[in-house]
Amino acid sequence: MNILDIIEKKEKKLELTKSELEFVINGYLNESIPDYQMSALLMAILLNGMTEKETVSLTEIMLNSGDKITFDFNVVDKHSTGGVGDKTTLVLIPLVASLGTKVAKMGGRGLGHTGGTIDKLESIAGFNTEITIEELKQEVEEIGASIAGQTGNLCPADKKIYALRDVTGTVASIPLIASSIMSKKLASGASNIVIDLKVGEGALMNNIDDARELANIMIKIGKAFGKNVICVLTNMNQPLGYAIGNALEVREAIDTLNGKGPKDLEELVINLASLMISLDQNVPMEILIESVENALKNGLGFEKFKEIVSYQGGDISNIPVATNIIEIKAEKSGYVKNISALKIGELARRLGAGRLSKTDEIDYTVGIVLTKKVGDEVNAGETIAKVYTNKVLIPEKDVSECFEITDFKVDKPKLIYEIIK
Amino acid sequence: MNILDIIEKKEKKLELTKSELEFVINGYLNESIPDYQMSALLMAILLNGMTEKETVSLTEIMLNSGDKITFDFNVVDKHSTGGVGDKTTLVLIPLVASLGTKVAKMGGRGLGHTGGTIDKLESIAGFNTEITIEELKQEVEEIGASIAGQTGNLCPADKKIYALRDVTGTVASIPLIASSIMSKKLASGASNIVIDLKVGEGALMNNIDDARELANIMIKIGKAFGKNVICVLTNMNQPLGYAIGNALEVREAIDTLNGKGPKDLEELVINLASLMISLDQNVPMEILIESVENALKNGLGFEKFKEIVSYQGGDISNIPVATNIIEIKAEKSGYVKNISALKIGELARRLGAGRLSKTDEIDYTVGIVLTKKVGDEVNAGETIAKVYTNKVLIPEKDVSECFEITDFKVDKPKLIYEIIK
Repeated sequence: MNILDIIEKKEKKLELTKSELEFVINGYLNESIPDYQMSALLMAILLNGMTEKETVSLTEIMLNSGDKITFDFNVVDKHSTGGVGDKTTLVLIPLVASLGTKVAKMGGRGLGHTGGTIDKLESIAGFNTEITIEELKQEVEEIGASIAGQTGNLCPADKKIYALRDVTGTVASIPLIASSIMSKKLASGASNIVIDLKVGEGALMNNIDDARELANIMIKIGKAFGKNVICVLTNMNQPLGYAIGNALEVREAIDTLNGKGPKDLEELVINLASLMISLDQNVPMEILIESVENALKNGLGFEKFKEIVSYQGGDISNIPVATNIIEIKAEKSGYVKNISALKIGELARRLGAGRLSKTDEIDYTVGIVLTKKVGDEVNAGETIAKVYTNKVLIPEKDVSECFEITDFKVDKPKLIYEIIK
Repeated sequence: MNILDIIEKKEKKLELTKSELEFVINGYLNESIPDYQMSALLMAILLNGMTEKETVSLTEIMLNSGDKITFDFNVVDKHSTGGVGDKTTLVLIPLVASLGTKVAKMGGRGLGHTGGTIDKLESIAGFNTEITIEELKQEVEEIGASIAGQTGNLCPADKKIYALRDVTGTVASIPLIASSIMSKKLASGASNIVIDLKVGEGALMNNIDDARELANIMIKIGKAFGKNVICVLTNMNQPLGYAIGNALEVREAIDTLNGKGPKDLEELVINLASLMISLDQNVPMEILIESVENALKNGLGFEKFKEIVSYQGGDISNIPVATNIIEIKAEKSGYVKNISALKIGELARRLGAGRLSKTDEIDYTVGIVLTKKVGDEVNAGETIAKVYTNKVLIPEKDVSECFEITDFKVDKPKLIYEIIK
């Protein structure tokens, strides 16, 4: 077998066999295939696609390239393709666990304009996300949930390929995204997986058709491995909730677990939690919604949150945020038509809440808290956002440019576009 | 400017600006852009194409990346896209010079199943192809012609990009081929350029449509730089002439310069020579054909050949060929329908006449001499080819498998498909 023949086969849009894909992926991992040949193949895949069969094979090869976690009981997992202000996991995991469904969640760190769950949790003093596979399993067994950083050597092939895609313009390939997400989810050992597939300007998928395609191939991959996958396509044109920035988002998550969260975040959490529990307990999601809502209102979820934080060494009485707060005022009266998630995410990163490169240090205390959302009425001079900053100064104009205000009434946008099973 | 933005632009099939192409090519040459990003872009170019404007810009950038030769007089150049048994240059250059048209030819070495002019010339004892730009210019001025290896630092960007294309499956892109050929031709300083564009199984272009597209873009690039380019599309399904292998081809070239060459080689040489002289002297090619034919018959071209060889230190009384000759017999009677140029070229390489990698040593004395060509009648047991070999033994079956013999009469194939100006 020869890498050039394989590249040329993909140039001609032909289907690669599983053994050809194994030759490529294992060769890349053991360095017999150099970066420059892999990136040429990745570009050919980006432009010429992969069949369902190829995508399933690629997932399996990446899954088998490293450690695999197994549980002695069913666990459910949740994945988000990444958004701005997306603190869903912080609310969802304890909520689901509080209702008796075991959940093991491995989160990531933020990069670019989107944040990561692990960074958010680390804004809680003492919270330890660097736990071993054994510790993760024990925590799930004992208290029903765990939120950890990447642990063990899961999918090293995916890790190496993703790093190359990131610097060669080959991220935006649906089969490559699907196999990357699914190989990691399968290696994490969950029986049931709910994926929050963000759609919009600030998201991985910019349009609903691509998102639907990605959802369908991920569900098919799941089936091929005997796992249930549900994808929820959600709106990521404006940030989720009001807070953007690590500690600010943790505070909003805590508010939400106390029944005082933003409406959009609440709606998302209730739907995702009901789906996760319904998969685990094999009951229709509809009959679960009320008990999920109750667990948010009566503090059941919050108790579980505190249990997880305490188990992992954290102290929620100590979540500092920046004390220098700049209020951004509306330049005119009207209705908020758009709040650019992408621009807000970029601003938060510039404040220090995120990273441009993996080695950048972040400032957990900074960020932005919106005071208006799309559809809200606003008066000229009214505060539309508060910027929490330490050293970095962002021109007020840059913040107000994230907002589009129109003279005409604007409907609240739909948050959940569709649920694909 | 950012390489990722440029790659993503090409992914979307958008036109790159000249300054974007400069950023890429110069960045690649000075190593600020690594191989893996360049190969991703090359694959995007291969699959999504380049506009005429982009192709002209790319040619100009590669042309300007190194030395450029200038002459104080008009010279004509000839390029072949490479074939099997293609000793045309050896006959053509002295022939054209013998009729008063100055010609400076820089040849290459063979790689894979096709041979190179420089290797062929080096089978002449003492012949020096490693001359400087100044020596080349002086030789053209003094005797009207020179055949040299790559001299000076011409188009280093093309050299570096070509080496990467070769190992990333990105050779077969018409705009990349066109800009690679044309940047080198323009750097060589010729005013008029005739390109022998081989079409067929053993050639760079496998079908006439692709060849036509390549011809047209090369002619347009020429125009953009004020140069006349003519492309001659020729048949490379069977080897050209009878001899394949360095010394064997030099001997056939000398026969041709003495009016005793194979019909196909003669036809090609007469047409190409007439075109080259017509461009240089600005007269119709038709009125030149007779004098070209005469120069082949009356030894005028051969005298010039000897002059060039002598000027460059060679001795044509000493062109050894292997003495171990294996005759291959026809397995059945009939008519030769096909002689695979690709397979014959591969056999010659296996005998030692060519290289798989650039550092392989070659044996000048070995090769294959066909005794039949497509359209010839053949009797079972009659010799169809002679294999000249030293150590390497090629199974006779491998040679006879290059020949397809049919029961029905076969027309002699057309050699020159079309001339595009």
